[in-house]
Amino acid sequence: LTTFNIEHVLSRLRASLEANDLNQAVQTLEKLRTPDQAEIFEALPAGDQVALLPQMDPEQSADLLEELEDRDAAGLVRALPREAVTRIVEAMEPDEVADLMGEFEPEDVRELLTRLEDPEEIHPLLLHPQDSAGGLMTSQFLALRRRMTAREALQAVHAWKPQDDYLSFLFVVDKSGHLMGEVSLRQLIVANPQDELAGFMNPDVISVRAGTDQEEVARLMKRYDLLYLPVVDRENMLLGMITFDDVIDVLEDEATEDIQRLGGALPLDEPYLRMGTFAVTRKRIGWLMLLFLTESLTGTVLRHFQSELQTMVALSFFIPLLIGTGGNAGSQTTSTLIRALAVGDISISDALRAWWHELRVGLLLGLGMGAVAYGRALLWGSSPALAITIALAICTIVVWANALGAVLPLLASRLRIDPTVVSGPVMSTLVDATGLFIYFSIARIVLKL
Amino acid sequence: LTTFNIEHVLSRLRASLEANDLNQAVQTLEKLRTPDQAEIFEALPAGDQVALLPQMDPEQSADLLEELEDRDAAGLVRALPREAVTRIVEAMEPDEVADLMGEFEPEDVRELLTRLEDPEEIHPLLLHPQDSAGGLMTSQFLALRRRMTAREALQAVHAWKPQDDYLSFLFVVDKSGHLMGEVSLRQLIVANPQDELAGFMNPDVISVRAGTDQEEVARLMKRYDLLYLPVVDRENMLLGMITFDDVIDVLEDEATEDIQRLGGALPLDEPYLRMGTFAVTRKRIGWLMLLFLTESLTGTVLRHFQSELQTMVALSFFIPLLIGTGGNAGSQTTSTLIRALAVGDISISDALRAWWHELRVGLLLGLGMGAVAYGRALLWGSSPALAITIALAICTIVVWANALGAVLPLLASRLRIDPTVVSGPVMSTLVDATGLFIYFSIARIVLKL
Repeated sequence: LTTFNIEHVLSRLRASLEANDLNQAVQTLEKLRTPDQAEIFEALPAGDQVALLPQMDPEQSADLLEELEDRDAAGLVRALPREAVTRIVEAMEPDEVADLMGEFEPEDVRELLTRLEDPEEIHPLLLHPQDSAGGLMTSQFLALRRRMTAREALQAVHAWKPQDDYLSFLFVVDKSGHLMGEVSLRQLIVANPQDELAGFMNPDVISVRAGTDQEEVARLMKRYDLLYLPVVDRENMLLGMITFDDVIDVLEDEATEDIQRLGGALPLDEPYLRMGTFAVTRKRIGWLMLLFLTESLTGTVLRHFQSELQTMVALSFFIPLLIGTGGNAGSQTTSTLIRALAVGDISISDALRAWWHELRVGLLLGLGMGAVAYGRALLWGSSPALAITIALAICTIVVWANALGAVLPLLASRLRIDPTVVSGPVMSTLVDATGLFIYFSIARIVLKL
Repeated sequence: LTTFNIEHVLSRLRASLEANDLNQAVQTLEKLRTPDQAEIFEALPAGDQVALLPQMDPEQSADLLEELEDRDAAGLVRALPREAVTRIVEAMEPDEVADLMGEFEPEDVRELLTRLEDPEEIHPLLLHPQDSAGGLMTSQFLALRRRMTAREALQAVHAWKPQDDYLSFLFVVDKSGHLMGEVSLRQLIVANPQDELAGFMNPDVISVRAGTDQEEVARLMKRYDLLYLPVVDRENMLLGMITFDDVIDVLEDEATEDIQRLGGALPLDEPYLRMGTFAVTRKRIGWLMLLFLTESLTGTVLRHFQSELQTMVALSFFIPLLIGTGGNAGSQTTSTLIRALAVGDISISDALRAWWHELRVGLLLGLGMGAVAYGRALLWGSSPALAITIALAICTIVVWANALGAVLPLLASRLRIDPTVVSGPVMSTLVDATGLFIYFSIARIVLKL
């Protein structure tokens, strides 16, 4: 592997561009693999992108456009000369063209379609919502027939001249186009040339309807390790197929949503830097406000213990430390459980075991933290009685936070709510008010306030 | 798609098992697809697993064992009769056998190898660490020669009779076995039968050394959409190849580690419920203690403002609310930035833009939260001056938390530290002490304390 060094390639490319040597620049780009080309391209100013793309080999330009985000690709296409657009779009996969068209106004789409050689390939794809199976599928596929022999099937592939080097499965239909089975290229090659497909095809094909949501598509393809998923209509007629690379992005988007939700914010709909200040604020203010209102319970608890606070102002020094540690312990627990739920290490039926597990872990952690807190309080010159209060409080709060952190994600999952809503911020907010109550109750007893 | 309903299948299976109808149970299982079989199997008691597995078709048993976690598979294998083990292991992929053997004692491995027909296939794989390219690869592959024609290559595949239906790429070597290129099955079928591979193979193959870490392997396969990655030695001799399904688990493990780290804990090495109380505690106590010691700065700040607190005990009522909101705002920011970094939406060179973005978002959020906090404080009967203090403090703290939350993940990434260490717990801990300082400084000025 010749490793790809983006800085190195960029500086070479910029040198060629500054010297107005477009040919040299195009050569540098064309030597790269598509994902590397895309990374380089995104780092170039728009003017250079518009200058370079039409000079590249149309196949390579098409691959590059497919690798870019739809919105970036659409922006680029708008700035290109019309004949360059036609040439590049002709070389793109129909499903990618359909996705790209989703970014344009209907009249621009109609106009572009009139300029294409084969608009019928793309037209049906435009009818499906982009986030459905129909929106993900390509209509370019070879359907084999049951009565074909292995040799005839291989000849059909040879004549079809597919572009896709990942090609490994082909679908078999009856004479009206109903999906009947699948064969792999491997099977076609290994079989006796005169064997009929019906004899060795796999009739148990997983397929989806055109309206199936893309997250379900992604889940199926991941669970069953599918590279190709056929899309059918209500009569089981084969409409198209989805390839795995169309779904990888869906899986990545889902992971992004999870992590943003874990941070206590609604998922962003677009790449981060592209969202405006107001849009990002809107995604965050709701949760922040809800957490604020819940958190304001802490004020109520503190007012309740006003006389204790007045008698011993030193009690307040430990407030952030105690509730902060509780929130941290709770976050550790929920993040572990949320992930264990997601990958299937635990299920709702394990709720009691998980709870008992966290209770014991909480006790161990609490004892450890309590001992350290006792020492820290004495170091600050607190009385032994106050130090014992702090130690007891931190131990109890950690156990409580762990128990709560174990229960909430499972409860959410039971109620069919995404467990990632029980994020770190939610946990610390819940632990804060209850933790203060625990703290002052212990203080009242131990310090006889 | 005949949808898979685990409860339904389980109850049918349990009924067969209770009626001692092992045949019926095996039939029910064998009708399922492998991932579904594995889910069902994991839900059965160990005794039933040991009874069912040897009755199943060896190919299916092998697939099922491969789908289970290595440790579960090893436990099951230990409990099976020896001849059943030999039969099933013979049907497994060599790389999966090697992984499984990693769970056994060396003498058991040696003993099992003596019972296999082809121990040489597995032996070299045992030499590589499990988390390296050598540990992931399979040694079962067909190497083609440059001077072969497309027809000869197809005949070689036909004679080799591979099992893998995903087969789509084959590698080309010179006469001493050095990796020279790759061809796809598609190319072999589409090419003129008499064309030599050297004429149309892709000579620019991405390959790795046997010692390459599995995370680098996963990164390469994901970035370049590779289904097969050849593994070579220092002389570029082809040793084996890694298939994509071996890497999917690596990618999933990485996501798990990220999420656990985001919760402020070290990643667990094993499935959650399998780890003991002490082991889980060990993974968490370090961070919890470090955060505690950092958080104890809050005590120092509060002691510094002791006289203000004594003069106006009501100031303490707002402590958890103010620092909690700051921590939440910071967590929202870091989680967004960490993910944007991971998927490549931003890079270090965007640091200034991201910081400016968050500063503006923070200002908007801060103004909104300040207005609400002002109202909330008045509702609690605070004086207008105290309410203004709270509003100003929350606005400043949110802006500060957002700015800090934007900078830290990028700083970590710049220092080549995994940005996920800047987790929610770390953010709230950092914001707590600094937030208190902001709060009391504002209080001192506005309330003239």
